Amino acid sequence: MLTYSFEHLEGESLYEHLYRCIRRDILAGRLQAGEKLPSKRSLARQLGISVITVEGAYGQLVAEGYCQSVPKKGFFVARVMGLPQKSSRRMETAVERETPRPKYLADFTANSLPPEDFPFKTWARLLRQVIAGQPAALLERSPGVGILSLRQSIAAHLKSFRGLEVSPEQIVIGAGTEYLYSLLVQLLGREKRFGVENPGYDKIRKVYHGHGVDCVPVDMDEDGIRIDALTAQHVDILHISPSHHFPTGCITPISRRYGLLGWVSAAPGRCIIEDDYDSEFRLTGRPIPTMMGIDVGGRVIYMNTFAKTLTPTIRISYMVLPEQLVREFHEKLGFYSCTVSNFEQYTLARFIQDGYFEKHINRMRNSYRKRREALLKAMKAGGLLARADILERGSGLHFLLRFHTQKSDEQLEQELAAHGIRMRPLRDYYAGEAPAARHIFVLNYSGMEASVLPEAIARITACLGA
Amino acid sequence: MLTYSFEHLEGESLYEHLYRCIRRDILAGRLQAGEKLPSKRSLARQLGISVITVEGAYGQLVAEGYCQSVPKKGFFVARVMGLPQKSSRRMETAVERETPRPKYLADFTANSLPPEDFPFKTWARLLRQVIAGQPAALLERSPGVGILSLRQSIAAHLKSFRGLEVSPEQIVIGAGTEYLYSLLVQLLGREKRFGVENPGYDKIRKVYHGHGVDCVPVDMDEDGIRIDALTAQHVDILHISPSHHFPTGCITPISRRYGLLGWVSAAPGRCIIEDDYDSEFRLTGRPIPTMMGIDVGGRVIYMNTFAKTLTPTIRISYMVLPEQLVREFHEKLGFYSCTVSNFEQYTLARFIQDGYFEKHINRMRNSYRKRREALLKAMKAGGLLARADILERGSGLHFLLRFHTQKSDEQLEQELAAHGIRMRPLRDYYAGEAPAARHIFVLNYSGMEASVLPEAIARITACLGA
Repeated sequence: MLTYSFEHLEGESLYEHLYRCIRRDILAGRLQAGEKLPSKRSLARQLGISVITVEGAYGQLVAEGYCQSVPKKGFFVARVMGLPQKSSRRMETAVERETPRPKYLADFTANSLPPEDFPFKTWARLLRQVIAGQPAALLERSPGVGILSLRQSIAAHLKSFRGLEVSPEQIVIGAGTEYLYSLLVQLLGREKRFGVENPGYDKIRKVYHGHGVDCVPVDMDEDGIRIDALTAQHVDILHISPSHHFPTGCITPISRRYGLLGWVSAAPGRCIIEDDYDSEFRLTGRPIPTMMGIDVGGRVIYMNTFAKTLTPTIRISYMVLPEQLVREFHEKLGFYSCTVSNFEQYTLARFIQDGYFEKHINRMRNSYRKRREALLKAMKAGGLLARADILERGSGLHFLLRFHTQKSDEQLEQELAAHGIRMRPLRDYYAGEAPAARHIFVLNYSGMEASVLPEAIARITACLGA
Repeated sequence: MLTYSFEHLEGESLYEHLYRCIRRDILAGRLQAGEKLPSKRSLARQLGISVITVEGAYGQLVAEGYCQSVPKKGFFVARVMGLPQKSSRRMETAVERETPRPKYLADFTANSLPPEDFPFKTWARLLRQVIAGQPAALLERSPGVGILSLRQSIAAHLKSFRGLEVSPEQIVIGAGTEYLYSLLVQLLGREKRFGVENPGYDKIRKVYHGHGVDCVPVDMDEDGIRIDALTAQHVDILHISPSHHFPTGCITPISRRYGLLGWVSAAPGRCIIEDDYDSEFRLTGRPIPTMMGIDVGGRVIYMNTFAKTLTPTIRISYMVLPEQLVREFHEKLGFYSCTVSNFEQYTLARFIQDGYFEKHINRMRNSYRKRREALLKAMKAGGLLARADILERGSGLHFLLRFHTQKSDEQLEQELAAHGIRMRPLRDYYAGEAPAARHIFVLNYSGMEASVLPEAIARITACLGA
């Protein structure tokens, strides 16, 4: 049934508006070729408009070839020129992606920040100050690598949080790490062979493949990337998260780090991309020093993001180039404009400089710790701890759970979903077979509300079966 | 001298506030390593606070390593953060790029917006409303193609300003057109041969080359791209700005447009990227319909940006895919996150929906028209019109000037620069030889202040020689 709102006409006549609504549905494939339109009379009644109005709209649709009038039968959607034969499916797929995800009782894959955790007031106030205080600077083109004061603030943050001493000139700001990967492909050369972690975060491989780069998964053991695998696969550029691997939580110990630095310096053209995406949120143990910090050969590129510490919906990430690459970057890629808005660059710079970022991280760390504790408590109370082992690595915002169950991972995932629980099996993060991942699931608890936990845990426990 | 305001304490103690202000100045490089801080007593007197307060702030700065206390001498800024100990040649090169451009009396290459022309008040108010009104939506991940309400607003804008009827599902938002080019390379295939306009905007070719794509300059005549050149060079993907070519201002007439559409539909896999970057600012004549609007084959991708209409420092551009490509886009590139911050996407959506964008464009058009008239008037008054021909094509924010001079373009450009006038010869925009471009210069007047014009025109006239 066609239902359209006539509230926002914006100066259009009723007939024009109706014509446009129907046409849009035809173009979007919501009305398919051959489909019968409601009779003029019934549509008029349904929408509370006159038959003349519907007549006008149908008339124009026929005149433009979107519909056909079949005498004594009514109006039918025509096969529109320019739309492919199977057009409807095509657009439906696209349209589906617009619809929000199904609502779960508990989504252990989500990475969202509860609104109360984002410092809206401070952010809005700093933004206001930036707009009032430096209007001219806001309209002045940012250097391609980002505005200086933000890079200075990040350098200071890296020193105090990661013990990493870098100069603002080494820093490149970009709209998300995915964008920065594309800059790195251009900087390091697309003829290089890239290696990513197996298991690992699949999107990284997708971005490299999207840029036409040969990218292979490299096997890990419990200490991180296996050096023999690296050599056997002739990797040039290694992309890793040694301080907190996703999703296993594995932390590459210092001996393996030196092993990797040995590998990277053994041949020219090799490079390590150190993705430090959530190091701020390690909840246990001492912070792990960065690989860039112990590398003297200038072969490590450090990368981090404000997606985890602030919100993924402010698109600001950065990378730190070794000094050897700074000049090459400017020569090869200096023509690019910065992809982050000045307004947000200046606001974030102030947010860091004035100490709010530090406060915010501390607050978030407490908030995540509480969520973690609430989850553990609920798991214990609900009897889930007797049916599962927590594989604990001191990781930040998620952990791994090995279920005691006879069910296959696929079956369990589906049954959980049917009961309103979304959870991904570890197997999903592997390229190829992964017998060791059996029965292990990834639980991201960063956005989990305590109130749903008892019910969620009960459902999970029930799904495990006898 | 340190001067800080104590008006906006926001719950901080005086000492905390002072500590934070000084720390910020140190981190931002406004207070440099080795610099002496004022004595506690004098700073207290100057700021109208107690010595104890200053003592508390200095104490904390010393404890955290930002300052050093030297007995009997006072407090000094310590060497903190990543300011490099050793300044290598390499880094100096990078640092040079940080330094602002030399100041010219008149820069006819700049594309900046005078701060009084940007609607700061409205923008700030809408931003505030967005933050107050929909905090949860701001933290919810945007679809990869951008938030729906912004795409809806853009679709409505395209309809009313360009007569282009598209569905929001066809629109992809990205952080700048350069970023969108990279998506198009991935979507259309990097094995394709891309063609760009000769003469043309060099950055487009650089971006394609950066992505490892075979990209050739295609010769133009006075109606736009020459079809024979296109065929001879085996171009698959043609990137053009048919409604207003930069820098010549050439407008491709309807007959050539159909010729290009004939070319694009004559072989599978061909495609036209229609870059409509400043169509809002045509000052004369009727608006030119888009190529996408007359294409029935689904081979034209439309692209535009808010860089010209708002400011280049808010990084929002968009493209409109033909319906045939929408599904392919989602399948191939659906994994990418949107590169524009939610905060600015929602603000811009409101800005368009509430009619401010239309008002702003009209105001800017008037403003540019005034700048253009002022420039013409000054050229006449200064006698420059007797020494140069304006090559007028009804273009938006610049025009071409052919000087009557014996000097070479290179010599003239250098002499102008030496006299504080920045101007680029048309020759710079050509690949290869360009005898027809001789003595022609590009004058961008969009940011030109009327007050400097008489002097600027006098200097230009003097540089032309006898």
